[in-house]
Amino acid sequence: MSTLVQADRPGSDAKPLLRHDEGGVAFLTLNRPAARNALSIALMSALEAEFSAIARDDAVKVVVIGGAGPAFCAGHDLREMRENPDRALYEALFSQCSRLMLAITHLPKPVIARVHGIATAAGCQLVATCDLAIAAESTRFATPGVNIGLFCSTPMVALTRAVSRKAAMAMLLTGEMIGADEAKRIGLVNAVVPDATLDHAVAELAGKIAGKSPLTVAIGKEAFYRQAEMPLETAYAYAAETMTRNMLARDAEEGIDAFLQKRTPVWRGC
Amino acid sequence: MSTLVQADRPGSDAKPLLRHDEGGVAFLTLNRPAARNALSIALMSALEAEFSAIARDDAVKVVVIGGAGPAFCAGHDLREMRENPDRALYEALFSQCSRLMLAITHLPKPVIARVHGIATAAGCQLVATCDLAIAAESTRFATPGVNIGLFCSTPMVALTRAVSRKAAMAMLLTGEMIGADEAKRIGLVNAVVPDATLDHAVAELAGKIAGKSPLTVAIGKEAFYRQAEMPLETAYAYAAETMTRNMLARDAEEGIDAFLQKRTPVWRGC
Amino acid sequence: MSTLVQADRPGSDAKPLLRHDEGGVAFLTLNRPAARNALSIALMSALEAEFSAIARDDAVKVVVIGGAGPAFCAGHDLREMRENPDRALYEALFSQCSRLMLAITHLPKPVIARVHGIATAAGCQLVATCDLAIAAESTRFATPGVNIGLFCSTPMVALTRAVSRKAAMAMLLTGEMIGADEAKRIGLVNAVVPDATLDHAVAELAGKIAGKSPLTVAIGKEAFYRQAEMPLETAYAYAAETMTRNMLARDAEEGIDAFLQKRTPVWRGC
Repeated sequence: MSTLVQADRPGSDAKPLLRHDEGGVAFLTLNRPAARNALSIALMSALEAEFSAIARDDAVKVVVIGGAGPAFCAGHDLREMRENPDRALYEALFSQCSRLMLAITHLPKPVIARVHGIATAAGCQLVATCDLAIAAESTRFATPGVNIGLFCSTPMVALTRAVSRKAAMAMLLTGEMIGADEAKRIGLVNAVVPDATLDHAVAELAGKIAGKSPLTVAIGKEAFYRQAEMPLETAYAYAAETMTRNMLARDAEEGIDAFLQKRTPVWRGC
Repeated sequence: MSTLVQADRPGSDAKPLLRHDEGGVAFLTLNRPAARNALSIALMSALEAEFSAIARDDAVKVVVIGGAGPAFCAGHDLREMRENPDRALYEALFSQCSRLMLAITHLPKPVIARVHGIATAAGCQLVATCDLAIAAESTRFATPGVNIGLFCSTPMVALTRAVSRKAAMAMLLTGEMIGADEAKRIGLVNAVVPDATLDHAVAELAGKIAGKSPLTVAIGKEAFYRQAEMPLETAYAYAAETMTRNMLARDAEEGIDAFLQKRTPVWRGC
Repeated sequence: MSTLVQADRPGSDAKPLLRHDEGGVAFLTLNRPAARNALSIALMSALEAEFSAIARDDAVKVVVIGGAGPAFCAGHDLREMRENPDRALYEALFSQCSRLMLAITHLPKPVIARVHGIATAAGCQLVATCDLAIAAESTRFATPGVNIGLFCSTPMVALTRAVSRKAAMAMLLTGEMIGADEAKRIGLVNAVVPDATLDHAVAELAGKIAGKSPLTVAIGKEAFYRQAEMPLETAYAYAAETMTRNMLARDAEEGIDAFLQKRTPVWRGC
């Protein structure tokens, strides 16, 4: 099943976001290649709408975000921003972008970034925000806002939670590009693969996770981000309660019995 | 001195936990090799009892945890869990496991994981929880709960505090094994050594720390975990007060004087 | 312009801290080479005074901290401490040191550590505290307080916020030296360069950042450390507000227009 969502602008044929579902995986493609997939208001709205739909769609187990054309994503749409130099518009824009990133964190399904070309500013933030990320070896990453007088302050919220402080500071203060190997070294992406095998590697990872119990994955992803912000003892109390709840679910009983009986489990998502 | 504690079950000769003390180091050995040292209730109780005893034992400066047989530790005892499918039992089990991990963090002596074979689920959590860890190069690590429908939610409390978010997410969502070198790369273990030299490397590290002032180490370990959860300014106020208290102790006066006089200090632990 | 500040002690010609400004960069040099630049009360006071002056000095965009002689910094001045074994003095000393480190974090200009020789105890803390750090390849780092009975409790506040827990624990509990490559691997420094090119590398990095809008950099640095201590949603609300404020500044309008018009921006710092 393939779905095309929301036109870029009234009267235009171009859709800013494409969706293609296969094997329990929803592949979302940022589709503004001429603008290096800059996150226009229309594109962010399309992403938010799609995440809402996917949250309720039992057929989707995993989400992949990639970009059409030469770049993954070059951040905000500067032209759109400067055409409307207005406090209210800026507030709405940065709030929408933050809401979009939080929607990825709150989505009860894993989100994998399929990264190629460049991932800069809010595009780099998108990589940092996704639960997992695989990059083509030629990819370059940057938070270059400082070069245009606009510090990447919202991207750094995601960046500083993904990589060490000095690594984040270097990217934010210099605005310079780093390569894919360096992005892996600092923890911004999980893996780097030859450009030609990017789709294969992403599909393999997504397929592997799509085969797990969706209930178990949803419980785990929610607990991951919640416990990360708790003091240690509170986190343990919360996680122990989470595991008890998980253990009482049909999928855990089935999974453990299948494991002890050396057979393949059959998930029911409950 | 060697102590054998608490039988695995009434009437059984097997002790789930062995203890052997040498040179100020208590070597604890998980001793359920046929079950790959799965953390049965009896084994967890034995560990808790031993940590309580060690906390009060001035002769012990450092603790090492290792496993008998082919594995370090394979996590919870699934068979025991499925034999008693009851909410109250699960709650007690996960609470006990969390309490056990917190006992390691609160023990006023450093705990080193001596890791070989496999360290999975709560066994991987044990590695993440120990203050330090050395792994044999053939060791493999995983948080595979997702494969049996039971997300490794309590293990992730320790895992996410040891490694970066994307590295933790990859282990938790795929459930796949990672090797010892990757475990070192992401920060889960401090060092990787050839299998044949594991005991030597662990003994060397433990012996080195056992030679420090136990008072100083106890002050430092407690402060380490407490300040880690504080905002920066609070952490500094707390750490400055901690250093003043430490500085007024006999061992600090002796240590500094010995350093300035270029002689070996004699610790009194006060 | 070159400024020499505050004599080491009354009647002495030696200044504990040198300052040399060039191209918008203030180069501070710890100048107690015979004491391996140990942080005496006089040296810490000189650093605090200099940071206060620099905070108000529009000509300074970036600060570099280095050390004269064979070492970057060997930590506190143990001799000075043992000459005055008094609770009130220790409290004042550790409080001053913490205040000094916080002054670096709060300074609205990036601070780069230029590290060579050794950086130990509070000297290692200084490296961990600076926003960025470049080390000569022969540099060695340690938090060796445990060896003299005085755990590096205040250094660990900075260290644990820069590197992973097990890496920090290993340094703190063993007190052993690590090399520059290991310091880079764990995130304590950003880059390691041949000893002969250290000054060149530091000047290049400092110059690059000195060319950015100082307003943008100040907004970004403050937001970096503030958002790092907030829960995710609070951090996003704060960062979105910060970006809106930044976007309405003259320098952001200029920077974006210059970018869209493919010309060099002219910063006004407002």
